[in-house]
Amino acid sequence: MNTQERIEKLAGIKAELFKKDFLLTWEKSENDLRAILEIAGLLKQLRDENISPRVFDSGLAVSIFRDNSTRTRFSYASAANLLGLAVQDMDETKSQIAHGETVRETANMISFLTDFIGIRDDMYLGEGNKYMREVAQALDEGYEKNVLPARPGIVNLQCDMDHPTQSMADLLHLKNTYGSLEALKGKKIVMSWAYSPSYGKPLSVPQGIIALMTRFGMDVELAHPEGYGLIPEIVELAGKNAEKSGGSFSISNSMEESVKDADIVYPKSWAPFHIMQQRTELLKNKNVKGLAELEQQALQNNAKFKNWEYTAEMMKTTKNSEALYMHCLPAHRNEEISAGLMDAPDTVIWDEAENRLHAQKALMEALLQASC
Amino acid sequence: MNTQERIEKLAGIKAELFKKDFLLTWEKSENDLRAILEIAGLLKQLRDENISPRVFDSGLAVSIFRDNSTRTRFSYASAANLLGLAVQDMDETKSQIAHGETVRETANMISFLTDFIGIRDDMYLGEGNKYMREVAQALDEGYEKNVLPARPGIVNLQCDMDHPTQSMADLLHLKNTYGSLEALKGKKIVMSWAYSPSYGKPLSVPQGIIALMTRFGMDVELAHPEGYGLIPEIVELAGKNAEKSGGSFSISNSMEESVKDADIVYPKSWAPFHIMQQRTELLKNKNVKGLAELEQQALQNNAKFKNWEYTAEMMKTTKNSEALYMHCLPAHRNEEISAGLMDAPDTVIWDEAENRLHAQKALMEALLQASC
Amino acid sequence: MNTQERIEKLAGIKAELFKKDFLLTWEKSENDLRAILEIAGLLKQLRDENISPRVFDSGLAVSIFRDNSTRTRFSYASAANLLGLAVQDMDETKSQIAHGETVRETANMISFLTDFIGIRDDMYLGEGNKYMREVAQALDEGYEKNVLPARPGIVNLQCDMDHPTQSMADLLHLKNTYGSLEALKGKKIVMSWAYSPSYGKPLSVPQGIIALMTRFGMDVELAHPEGYGLIPEIVELAGKNAEKSGGSFSISNSMEESVKDADIVYPKSWAPFHIMQQRTELLKNKNVKGLAELEQQALQNNAKFKNWEYTAEMMKTTKNSEALYMHCLPAHRNEEISAGLMDAPDTVIWDEAENRLHAQKALMEALLQASC
Repeated sequence: MNTQERIEKLAGIKAELFKKDFLLTWEKSENDLRAILEIAGLLKQLRDENISPRVFDSGLAVSIFRDNSTRTRFSYASAANLLGLAVQDMDETKSQIAHGETVRETANMISFLTDFIGIRDDMYLGEGNKYMREVAQALDEGYEKNVLPARPGIVNLQCDMDHPTQSMADLLHLKNTYGSLEALKGKKIVMSWAYSPSYGKPLSVPQGIIALMTRFGMDVELAHPEGYGLIPEIVELAGKNAEKSGGSFSISNSMEESVKDADIVYPKSWAPFHIMQQRTELLKNKNVKGLAELEQQALQNNAKFKNWEYTAEMMKTTKNSEALYMHCLPAHRNEEISAGLMDAPDTVIWDEAENRLHAQKALMEALLQASC
Repeated sequence: MNTQERIEKLAGIKAELFKKDFLLTWEKSENDLRAILEIAGLLKQLRDENISPRVFDSGLAVSIFRDNSTRTRFSYASAANLLGLAVQDMDETKSQIAHGETVRETANMISFLTDFIGIRDDMYLGEGNKYMREVAQALDEGYEKNVLPARPGIVNLQCDMDHPTQSMADLLHLKNTYGSLEALKGKKIVMSWAYSPSYGKPLSVPQGIIALMTRFGMDVELAHPEGYGLIPEIVELAGKNAEKSGGSFSISNSMEESVKDADIVYPKSWAPFHIMQQRTELLKNKNVKGLAELEQQALQNNAKFKNWEYTAEMMKTTKNSEALYMHCLPAHRNEEISAGLMDAPDTVIWDEAENRLHAQKALMEALLQASC
Repeated sequence: MNTQERIEKLAGIKAELFKKDFLLTWEKSENDLRAILEIAGLLKQLRDENISPRVFDSGLAVSIFRDNSTRTRFSYASAANLLGLAVQDMDETKSQIAHGETVRETANMISFLTDFIGIRDDMYLGEGNKYMREVAQALDEGYEKNVLPARPGIVNLQCDMDHPTQSMADLLHLKNTYGSLEALKGKKIVMSWAYSPSYGKPLSVPQGIIALMTRFGMDVELAHPEGYGLIPEIVELAGKNAEKSGGSFSISNSMEESVKDADIVYPKSWAPFHIMQQRTELLKNKNVKGLAELEQQALQNNAKFKNWEYTAEMMKTTKNSEALYMHCLPAHRNEEISAGLMDAPDTVIWDEAENRLHAQKALMEALLQASC
């Protein structure tokens, strides 16, 4: 497709993203998601043709990182920059947020000339997404009362529930790999727990993947050792999505069994839901001793599942022995995946990573284009 | 007024801000201050008409924060961005400022392609404003000797004496609220100490307010418990200003008495001048034990004045029971002010906050426009 | 020369900098270095004529500082800004660089829309420059495999071996001072160790100076107390360069003797090579006790050479009693150099400092202009 055709195709999709937030993929219609993927393709093509997609003369894209970040930080910065916005990081350690200052106050303060607020808040179960909604409500109120001349869009840069810029990038990667969203129907994707000697990894990536891929008719299998479950409501949602889209959703307790005949394997470590619940309580109470004990217990438990490493041998049992390997990166070599597979000369893991950027740009572009 | 009329009005004001610093409002002529307020209105109108006020193709606005900041950091960043400048923070903890490096050296180093240097330095009495002047002198010298191709303007982002971007925003808020500067004549504004369970809060806001509002014919009353005075020279200046402008200036030791019939109430905590003097000595000598003792003593003293909380009951005694409430934010709820008043549905506290941004932009715009 | 003549002169120099990295001056041809100096002159002239050299509509210049920095941080930020790029700092303490993440991974991650990566990594002997090359190789691979749409240029912002943006600025300063590179032939420059009560200062500046200035026919003398030698291979290289360029290179163990009849004196402290070797081992092993002991030993040794201070008396023995004083700054007053000399009213040390900026801009401009 040339640029003109792409624009026409995009115009034909009835999306409702303009002036909205992007907090969970499952709050967005299929049209919304399709529009974002189309915009990603269009932006990539504009770049290839050396046409600047800059739309702003000035403006801020605020970022709030309540957890460390490299990939997300850079893709957000790149996306903002490309659109003409300067990134202003809201470093809470350098801010004067007094005892009793409300979210409403802070949210409005940083928004007077801001077009986006990107937030990463993924440490506490039940908190991150909630915080984003508090900010959103404060901004709505500020805009209604004419405090804010414009309502900035909030972009979820990973919370306790979803990691939508990652899952949208992964969907884009799958679309590019197989040619279309339609081609994903009937493809088997295994979102599998994998071993790593760390604990407390967020659940947002596996949750984001099972909730999104089940919407496109894929056969999604979630594999994890007993006791490593995700947030029950999101698991349930994945089942319903699959039913609706004509795909399927199943849960297995064996990586080895799951990857058989899989088209795509996504092996990644995460903390069990019930451990995250305990951890959240301990973190809230600043119970250092309790946290240390929980960590020991969790690591010992993880160590029972060292065989949950995706290996070349397992890959041989996948569809045509060549299932697409996916990971949000960084991956633990020789723990989550054998180093040989991870660093294979024909790996396309980088294309997946690059799509983080394209998805991010497209998502932000979509939120500010009146046509979406 | 339309844009053209605004520009003509502005052109008629003989200001002398071009290529100057902005360190203390009382060093600026009334014309200077009026020009800034006019520019603020003009910039706001340009934004409403979606006309970009960008004047630079590139350039840096350096910020030096020797104390935490949210509001000032974001309004400075927004203002810089709007004018076309990138913010480069000079984080002294990440800098290689060797033992013995002079202010002259550092100031020139960061100024070769810099249009503004914004400085917050409010921890030590007798230091912050002095430091800004040292930087200013170093830059003058650098410019005279052709070290610097241009002389960056220095903007005081809060010092030990004044907080001019705050007080100018507050003046703008008053002008917008009452329609004109002339309408402020005879209005009673109470700058009152208020209780908070913290110590060491800068004196710059109350000092900035009494020194500035006395210049516009207002009846300014400074209220604080005995022993909570401000820098004597600035209190004296407020008196002289009032005399000159046809307003009045008085000091009271009762919030309750002061707010009676007030048009505007500005309740805010600060540390007593003599405590700040002791604290400055202790900080300089890194006397940790002495600081802890002083803090205890100061907090105990504060606790005697918990009734210095601005409440709905007090508000009833103000002019028409509806005095305008002002605060630079963040305010201590149920300490400085009752939460009910602070979060009232009809609060205009956000308009005051938004004016931080407009005043900041206008101030920086004024310093670089040859017409000012 | 007017702008047109400058451009024509530049066009006549066959440089090979386009799309390359800049890691060590001694990997660059004399034409490359001349082209950079010409571009510096051209950019300065464009600025005087108020012509914006902005070439990018958007894009990122990533910085990675593994050690503190003021001067380099600001000159990099200014240069990036002038070209139209936003600086995105990669703060490794705020990044999520997991155990086992490869340089290849991180390097590609931060490069999808990045035009430059500036790296300071000067703490460990044998590490900094090596790390830059690992990044370079990862980017080459990423570009070859179409992971990266463009290959960002890497700029060495100081490593264990060289500090090329400093040495190129110093060369530009010398060229401007004496009128041309040709005029440097036969000029005596003394790169001398000088006392400071600190230890562990990098060797990159003296190494960069002796390796670069010997290429332009200068008489370069390296002066240091016995035992304060530099990396032997670079000392050897300086000798070979001098032979080739018709200059000379010698080593002396007396500042006093060396500066006699010198045209230029560059007195600066550094750590002895063998101390840096031990320090590198101790740092790698996190041997805190060993580091403390080494520091004591090194400081005691330094203290034996307090007379290695460049003074007005010594200056009298230089060529016409007016040798040009150079320093990368910040300098230790009354240790490396007497305060009187350092702060003399006729000092041109600021012009040298300003050239940091011009050299940086020119270097980055050169790396991205197809004509170089």
